[in-house]
Amino acid sequence: MYRTHTCGELRLSDTGQTVTLAGWVQKSRRMGGMSFVDIRDRYGITQLRIDETTDPKISETVARLGREFVIQATGVVEERQSKNAKIPTGEIEIRLTDLKVLNASLTPPFTIEDESDGGEDIRAKYRYLDLRRGPLKRALMLRHRMAHEVRNYLDGKGFLEIETPFLIKSTPEGARDFVVPSRMNPGEFYALPQSPQTFKQLLMVAGYDRYFQIVRCFRDEDLRADRQPEFTQIDCEMSFVEQEDVLEVFEGMMRHLFKEVIGVEIAPKIPRMSWYDAMDNYGSDKPDIRYGMKIHEITSLVQGHGFSVFDGVEYVGAIAVPGCAGYTRKQTDELTEWVKRPQVGAKGLVYIKVNEDGSVKSSVDKFYTPEEVQAIAAAAGAQKGDLVLVLCGAKRKAQTMLGVLRIEMGNRLGLRNPHEYAPLWVVDFPLLEWDDETQRFYAMHHPFTAPKPEHLDWFYSNKKEDLERVCANAYDFVLNGVELGGGSIRIHEADVQQRMFEVLGISKEDADYKFGFIINAFKFGAPPHGGLAFGFDRVCALFGGQETIRDYIAFPKNNMGRDVMLDAPSRIDDVQMDELFLRSTAPEK
Amino acid sequence: MYRTHTCGELRLSDTGQTVTLAGWVQKSRRMGGMSFVDIRDRYGITQLRIDETTDPKISETVARLGREFVIQATGVVEERQSKNAKIPTGEIEIRLTDLKVLNASLTPPFTIEDESDGGEDIRAKYRYLDLRRGPLKRALMLRHRMAHEVRNYLDGKGFLEIETPFLIKSTPEGARDFVVPSRMNPGEFYALPQSPQTFKQLLMVAGYDRYFQIVRCFRDEDLRADRQPEFTQIDCEMSFVEQEDVLEVFEGMMRHLFKEVIGVEIAPKIPRMSWYDAMDNYGSDKPDIRYGMKIHEITSLVQGHGFSVFDGVEYVGAIAVPGCAGYTRKQTDELTEWVKRPQVGAKGLVYIKVNEDGSVKSSVDKFYTPEEVQAIAAAAGAQKGDLVLVLCGAKRKAQTMLGVLRIEMGNRLGLRNPHEYAPLWVVDFPLLEWDDETQRFYAMHHPFTAPKPEHLDWFYSNKKEDLERVCANAYDFVLNGVELGGGSIRIHEADVQQRMFEVLGISKEDADYKFGFIINAFKFGAPPHGGLAFGFDRVCALFGGQETIRDYIAFPKNNMGRDVMLDAPSRIDDVQMDELFLRSTAPEK
Repeated sequence: MYRTHTCGELRLSDTGQTVTLAGWVQKSRRMGGMSFVDIRDRYGITQLRIDETTDPKISETVARLGREFVIQATGVVEERQSKNAKIPTGEIEIRLTDLKVLNASLTPPFTIEDESDGGEDIRAKYRYLDLRRGPLKRALMLRHRMAHEVRNYLDGKGFLEIETPFLIKSTPEGARDFVVPSRMNPGEFYALPQSPQTFKQLLMVAGYDRYFQIVRCFRDEDLRADRQPEFTQIDCEMSFVEQEDVLEVFEGMMRHLFKEVIGVEIAPKIPRMSWYDAMDNYGSDKPDIRYGMKIHEITSLVQGHGFSVFDGVEYVGAIAVPGCAGYTRKQTDELTEWVKRPQVGAKGLVYIKVNEDGSVKSSVDKFYTPEEVQAIAAAAGAQKGDLVLVLCGAKRKAQTMLGVLRIEMGNRLGLRNPHEYAPLWVVDFPLLEWDDETQRFYAMHHPFTAPKPEHLDWFYSNKKEDLERVCANAYDFVLNGVELGGGSIRIHEADVQQRMFEVLGISKEDADYKFGFIINAFKFGAPPHGGLAFGFDRVCALFGGQETIRDYIAFPKNNMGRDVMLDAPSRIDDVQMDELFLRSTAPEK
Repeated sequence: MYRTHTCGELRLSDTGQTVTLAGWVQKSRRMGGMSFVDIRDRYGITQLRIDETTDPKISETVARLGREFVIQATGVVEERQSKNAKIPTGEIEIRLTDLKVLNASLTPPFTIEDESDGGEDIRAKYRYLDLRRGPLKRALMLRHRMAHEVRNYLDGKGFLEIETPFLIKSTPEGARDFVVPSRMNPGEFYALPQSPQTFKQLLMVAGYDRYFQIVRCFRDEDLRADRQPEFTQIDCEMSFVEQEDVLEVFEGMMRHLFKEVIGVEIAPKIPRMSWYDAMDNYGSDKPDIRYGMKIHEITSLVQGHGFSVFDGVEYVGAIAVPGCAGYTRKQTDELTEWVKRPQVGAKGLVYIKVNEDGSVKSSVDKFYTPEEVQAIAAAAGAQKGDLVLVLCGAKRKAQTMLGVLRIEMGNRLGLRNPHEYAPLWVVDFPLLEWDDETQRFYAMHHPFTAPKPEHLDWFYSNKKEDLERVCANAYDFVLNGVELGGGSIRIHEADVQQRMFEVLGISKEDADYKFGFIINAFKFGAPPHGGLAFGFDRVCALFGGQETIRDYIAFPKNNMGRDVMLDAPSRIDDVQMDELFLRSTAPEK
């Protein structure tokens, strides 16, 4: 062992001990015949002291040190003259008796500090240096702790972690698969799993009634910001359970993680909200309930007053933004432009200022009397000093836009403190989603999700409006406006599954081809079962108080799916292509 | 919840309780006005009793039950009349008051018993049914426990589990990579990792001084029996350590696993053996030390007596097989044929029988006097009643053949009890292996393994015999003749790495292309480091007392790399091929 202690553990009580540390040079400086070197490792930073007159040889070595050199330092722990209260080792220093350079270092291309001077690209290229910085180190340590506590909790509840295969069968449904050509089976391809969904259901058929796995998944999507082509899931499934049993176990898991990993006690009962309430009140299926500013429907109040924009729509809704009645024309104009961006997609924005004296001023004053405007503001839940913002359109679309606006105003007003945690279960999702373009239903969750037993009549009806009413025993776990996970009670009866494929317009042949093995498995005694999956990268990020996941992944890819450190993907040689019976039709670069 | 208890937990002390169980029908039978149903779940089997006269309705349901139906049974726990001492629930039964069929089942294509009547192919196709059988269930539960205890131990030692990417860069060295075409980067491919080797070394450069991961790896090899294209590794790396530190930590891990998972106490110090001793004495770099039967060199004793077969070779060696002097001519002939099979590759077999009266009889009596034969037998370590088996050839080749023969004889004599555990470290591997065919050196472990510091002079020599003498700080963990893991202290200095590439005949350009990012990383302060990896599938199998891994993997592939349950790999459609800029040149099927 190159060291007796880490750079984070020595304290005043160790004074007088001879110790050896090993680590990286954070910085070194000379001061009045003394040299000081800060040595850093994963555990902390310790100050080394060298007296130039008594230790000329060591001083010479110190003079050669550059940032990030790897050194091994032996000396005696002494109390520091000028203490540093900011670090746990700040009361001591090591008076060196020996110093060895274990490895030199080129000057790193950016500073290895909590706040680095390096841009994103250079830090991605030198990820192994970026990973030396405090924020990333803390992120990966948090991630380790999270995974360990997930396992401790689930193991304690009798769950078995069972590994499922990565080289599986491509099923062209949902997102695009990454595929892997098989050399031994020419012309054929494996697919990388988008999730172990079918395997966990097969494990339930096989009788493993409590399964989980922390597992990598793959999705060949056009990457949006903060999406990765490979990501990690906490994947879980249980047999002989109803929705309530699943929620209870995973509510417990979340409580355990909050407490054990970040020392936060969350409410004894996580609130539940139906998907309909979430949409109506928050314009989102993943509401941030850390603050109010709920959406209120004002359709009947505003229609029939000659304002054609409102009169011609299905739905008009409003939010009351606290304390913003003082917004200037410039500010409301800017907000109007903001909601008109394609990411939001509104045609315009109506506002009402409720002044401190109770008077109102709106952008549609000519259509409504002051009393009517007052009534609208009141219906929107506005208090004195609030700014009411009104959007309209088709119901769900308008609500969604209001939801986006609500989040934006929450951000602007500082209502979204990342270290305040407001978990929520969203339940009672619709089973099916109608798509106007393709004129068919899609499964809102996935085609194995069960309709609620009390909605089976509607499920077997052939009327579109009946099918639209069918709810699923499906649930999402939402934290601070971010969906961290979701799941459902699954279909376990072959005839219900058959009906589901029928409703989705998947022919028997198609279903057999794509899902044959699981349909078949269900004929051999499938138990009632259900489960859920959490996006582990995002769970870690949110627990760390961040919304972006990149720092919580050791070696992430960029938005083009490239690993710029490795320079991957890359061309492979012709021999490899020939072995795989493949030819590329890509243009030469 | 569909149950109040599992099928494995009720005992006499629960008598009188009303309980609900859910599970699968193991079997049902009628006997004198009573029906009995065995209900099974992951936890055990419980007997249900139905009185046909008092419960005619339940009896009717029972009559409809087939094997593997899923049922929910409610009733009262009662003491059994005829107890079954073989199962933990054998003292009780449930007198049913309610029985519900949760799902029917087709008749399974083979019996769901510890010993099934199904062949390997049909069980592979219906893996989800095979997984219901006891041996597989116990295997997967052991695997879960092993993984959990690996994590507990390493977490306790300050190791961080850090996930590394699966979509990486192809490096055409070593085994073949599986590759993944990138849709977003036309003509380019990711590779699936054969191991996270470079990433764990980068993590050491990044300062994460104790890393581990239980991680899937991929190797596109022509599959030998009991190899899988995807397999799981316990992958570990440490910084600021020497070989001794690594061995100590992982010896501790193995001791922990033996004790916590299967209740076995292994010796406080796992023996160590140099690679040279292992080869000389056991003809294997992974000796099974549960029994003796060591190899003895007898070259000088047997040469110069006119037996041209021995005179013309580099090496003659022998093992003494205890108690087999009575082998008949038929038996020795069969052994001779056995060693002549291509899997062993010997040209012939010489034997000496040491009779109980001390007399000897050998197949080469005409070349040696009885005294000379006695001396040879003594040199081979033979006792009265032993059979000495002699093979010859080039030294390492002959030793290897003797090693294979030794294992075979150990099997035949029942010396290899799978529930006796003899772990061993094999150390001091040669750094390099000369390949006659390509006339170059290969890294015995991998090109990042460090030469022993005391052998650096030889390492920088240009003489072949010097380079052949260089040893590595490399080590293998061997259990019962199976290599379960291995690792090494790595090169951390750029100039030593450069020299390694030079010795391996890898040009600077080639090295830069293949390993550029890691060579570059090593310039920024790489700490001294080393690590190892265990083959987790095999570790589990051996702990379970099996040598084949297939039962310890939930969904394994067959020898053609196919998942016969999924029917993967498979063709993908033209749209997908086009999106990937690929054309197949495989012949149509």
